[in-house]
Amino acid sequence: MSEIIQSSSNKTIKHIKSLHMKKYRDEYGRFIIEGEKLLEEALNYKAELIMVLFTQSYTGSESYLRYESLLKESNVPIFCAEDKIFKEACETDTPQGIIAVAEKTKADLDSIISKDEVCIVFLDEVRDPGNTGTIIRTADACGLDGVLVSKGSADIYNGKTIRSTMGSLFHIPVIQNLDVKDTLSKLRQEQIVTIGADPHSSTSCIDLPSYTKSAIIIGNEAKGIDNTIKALLDRNVKIPMPGRAESLNAGIAASILMYEFAIHKRHV
Amino acid sequence: MSEIIQSSSNKTIKHIKSLHMKKYRDEYGRFIIEGEKLLEEALNYKAELIMVLFTQSYTGSESYLRYESLLKESNVPIFCAEDKIFKEACETDTPQGIIAVAEKTKADLDSIISKDEVCIVFLDEVRDPGNTGTIIRTADACGLDGVLVSKGSADIYNGKTIRSTMGSLFHIPVIQNLDVKDTLSKLRQEQIVTIGADPHSSTSCIDLPSYTKSAIIIGNEAKGIDNTIKALLDRNVKIPMPGRAESLNAGIAASILMYEFAIHKRHV
Repeated sequence: MSEIIQSSSNKTIKHIKSLHMKKYRDEYGRFIIEGEKLLEEALNYKAELIMVLFTQSYTGSESYLRYESLLKESNVPIFCAEDKIFKEACETDTPQGIIAVAEKTKADLDSIISKDEVCIVFLDEVRDPGNTGTIIRTADACGLDGVLVSKGSADIYNGKTIRSTMGSLFHIPVIQNLDVKDTLSKLRQEQIVTIGADPHSSTSCIDLPSYTKSAIIIGNEAKGIDNTIKALLDRNVKIPMPGRAESLNAGIAASILMYEFAIHKRHV
Repeated sequence: MSEIIQSSSNKTIKHIKSLHMKKYRDEYGRFIIEGEKLLEEALNYKAELIMVLFTQSYTGSESYLRYESLLKESNVPIFCAEDKIFKEACETDTPQGIIAVAEKTKADLDSIISKDEVCIVFLDEVRDPGNTGTIIRTADACGLDGVLVSKGSADIYNGKTIRSTMGSLFHIPVIQNLDVKDTLSKLRQEQIVTIGADPHSSTSCIDLPSYTKSAIIIGNEAKGIDNTIKALLDRNVKIPMPGRAESLNAGIAASILMYEFAIHKRHV
């Protein structure tokens, strides 16, 4: 471990702080993760770590010694900062003494959608970082093959998204900045059945069969799927809602449809 | 409409601001709602409104005239504040020019659980206001009979909870501050099958039958259902997770189980 960082103008601290902003995440192709859980997942799933910064007080802990040895094995530089300086670099209030900088993950659309069996979810202008992260987490839990994210959606490397994924971003391919129409035409070429979430549809998701290849499309939180996009989909389905609520939260609707198509219909 | 409020020390403004805090919500038995959607739902479902405060700029809108006439019909006092003063009274950044003070809703546990058919959800130390609100919204969508909330859970009148319900708090009975053991014993007396969400259970929620009377129990976000409580439940079930995620977000798990028991199993 190098010396203890004592100044806000230290270049490591400045680099980490810059990654709070999408502009710099895009420029460097990097993002930050905070806390033990995410570092653990990054290490388990061989994420490419650029560096890890600990607080001075954390370096006294037993977990630190374990991380130090794992990081040294992988040649990941370790830094340490005074608690006050560390706090400045954090996005969260309770960062558990760990921040890491990771290389953005790379995933290839063709290799996801060319499988013989495939179930994916495609987010079209889902704007809330928490919703996006939660959907990635549920997609991972349901064993989906990947999460596609359109241009105009929340950045998957936003701190709130990353934290909501609880590490699932390291488990499952996620591709963002996709053009919706281009992507739908690629899905069609691969004979993937596209299923849009539409509370106004007359077809219940329960009544559809199980598909070997399917993509669930989730639209914007306020407006749903755009009508021009809806017209391009193979099916548009509703989740039955016998109660009084007009709609479900987008993350909930996505999760119920993933559960329905990837788990329930395949359950023997 | 009375005069335009121009001072932060105005007593209406001070009262509204006090209701940002649980302490005063409890003391007055009131809570605040912000925005058109929530006011609309409060009016449609006859919530007891104590007063409504508009911004000066909102009073020029067409919607204002409609609300003014609806509120006058129900004898609800209307106030108006300078935009700057109004903003001080708000919790959100984009409050759409409307804040209302409402009387806490009243619901009776016995009348919910004594029905011939009943499906409810019971939150045991669910701490996140957003999760709680989203669960209330999904419970409403799925046509559940009520939402029970234990002591130590998020306050259902927290601003974030209220906003996440999207008005469902006015549609469905929600009872908070319940003692878990007492409530479980009441459910047992009514022969309601208690089903705990437990990712470590060997029983899949899909394999359970449809129950005429059931209660889904959701535990704390970090720790799940306490073991002593788990032992008191009739069934503990997992949501199948073939992927790599260790768990689901508590709001998602609750929503999938409500969908499974209240919608899927009852679907003809």
